[in-house]
Amino acid sequence: METFFSFLERRVDDCSSLLCIGLDPHLADLQHPTPEAALDFCLSIVKETSTYAAAFKPNAAFFEYFGAEGWIALQKLISAIKAESQRLGSMIPVILDAKRGDIASTAEAYAKSAFEHLGADCITLNPYLGKDSIDPFLKFPKKGAFLLCKTSNPGSDDLQNLLVKNSEFSENSGFSPLYIHVAQLAQSWNTANNIGLVVGATQPEALAKVRAAAPDLWFLSPGVGAQGGDLATALKAGLRADGKGMLINVSRSIARAESPKRAAAELRDEILQVKNQLNF
Amino acid sequence: METFFSFLERRVDDCSSLLCIGLDPHLADLQHPTPEAALDFCLSIVKETSTYAAAFKPNAAFFEYFGAEGWIALQKLISAIKAESQRLGSMIPVILDAKRGDIASTAEAYAKSAFEHLGADCITLNPYLGKDSIDPFLKFPKKGAFLLCKTSNPGSDDLQNLLVKNSEFSENSGFSPLYIHVAQLAQSWNTANNIGLVVGATQPEALAKVRAAAPDLWFLSPGVGAQGGDLATALKAGLRADGKGMLINVSRSIARAESPKRAAAELRDEILQVKNQLNF
Repeated sequence: METFFSFLERRVDDCSSLLCIGLDPHLADLQHPTPEAALDFCLSIVKETSTYAAAFKPNAAFFEYFGAEGWIALQKLISAIKAESQRLGSMIPVILDAKRGDIASTAEAYAKSAFEHLGADCITLNPYLGKDSIDPFLKFPKKGAFLLCKTSNPGSDDLQNLLVKNSEFSENSGFSPLYIHVAQLAQSWNTANNIGLVVGATQPEALAKVRAAAPDLWFLSPGVGAQGGDLATALKAGLRADGKGMLINVSRSIARAESPKRAAAELRDEILQVKNQLNF
Repeated sequence: METFFSFLERRVDDCSSLLCIGLDPHLADLQHPTPEAALDFCLSIVKETSTYAAAFKPNAAFFEYFGAEGWIALQKLISAIKAESQRLGSMIPVILDAKRGDIASTAEAYAKSAFEHLGADCITLNPYLGKDSIDPFLKFPKKGAFLLCKTSNPGSDDLQNLLVKNSEFSENSGFSPLYIHVAQLAQSWNTANNIGLVVGATQPEALAKVRAAAPDLWFLSPGVGAQGGDLATALKAGLRADGKGMLINVSRSIARAESPKRAAAELRDEILQVKNQLNF
């Protein structure tokens, strides 16, 4: 049966790319502060980069900013990505970056909003409330969820780096950072090939540790480009044994490039080159 | 200068109540699965219970479920609470239960959405991304944020109960659960009287520990009623030294009562009675 990650892997093969294009219509990037301008900004990136995109990742916040009209724009954007995919003859997964997380009955409403109403294929979730806050999303067998694990922002250390006592069943009797425990939980929860992890590319050592803790999972890795992460170092630290398992998310450095199309093509090729050097 | 919590305390004094009424239009409670029905359901609870409500807490998920039209309904609901407050002559704070959490520039868009566009006075946030994900919300000097600390759902133990090594500066050299570290961080971050904590009423021992770790903060405590938490035990464990500092959140047991008005009045009086017994 098709799962979200088998869908993603088919697209990765179709376009020989591990690039996830973030669609973040920051006000600063818009000619006018309107939902129509936000939609146009994203549509133009989609048109220019679809050949090279393993996935698109619209960020809910920049649409919510415009209230109801922003919501309509987000829905139109996701429909437009489906239409563009059909034109290309290869469906491109849409990951809704919403970082939701709530108790069960509430999580169910969020899941229906993202998957049924908006038509997203996958969502980012915050794991702080535990497994029963994730389950309502996992009940959609063809959809997926990336759980926040180690994020790329400076404040990520405040909680994610706290040293947590390892379980008595662990090989190591000492401590591991909280984000490693999250990675281990996610690996153990992933019984239906629908859970991945958000792991920033700005801290390659952390990336390598998460890969060791969760050898099977797909990572969604922001932080290359505008946030300063190095592409080759990140791929080396995070790729799975099969040379997949990692989506490199780029937003601003493509959106603000003179030619987003060329920027995406170059980045796709750079990823392929690094993979070749690593013998994948 | 007025802060969110000085605003809340004025309302608590005006209505002699620590009751926060959750506005969760579950589909199961609606006559028709429409945004209009969700709005009517909430408006009727607001009308019936406003005399006894220290705050109202609409849950974003049940409105997002309806997409753009749900968003309009949520905006109308918040406006209606302001109008009802003016009728009463005492403004009732609106806490948007949205559990957001994202990196800085994105968090800024969420903050503007909640505080400017929707007009909420306060929001619930997930602390997993650290201080810089909270800061954009704190920049609004009259608004507030409740950070998730110890939630009332069964899965809350998965992460929140993990044992974290105490800092070398701590009185205790051993371990404390993750939620205690979150409480300590929140207490230290609360330099402008705008940060509170979500602490479920279902685990009174945890509630007492959080109170010890964060003696000054307001708690938003769900879990009494439908989820099985005992009111007197929770108040005993969580009230601040001044007999305030705790909002008892109730949703279903008021919404589904034969008379929501009577249910809210009784609960308000029950809280007052327990406070009297505790000599506040």
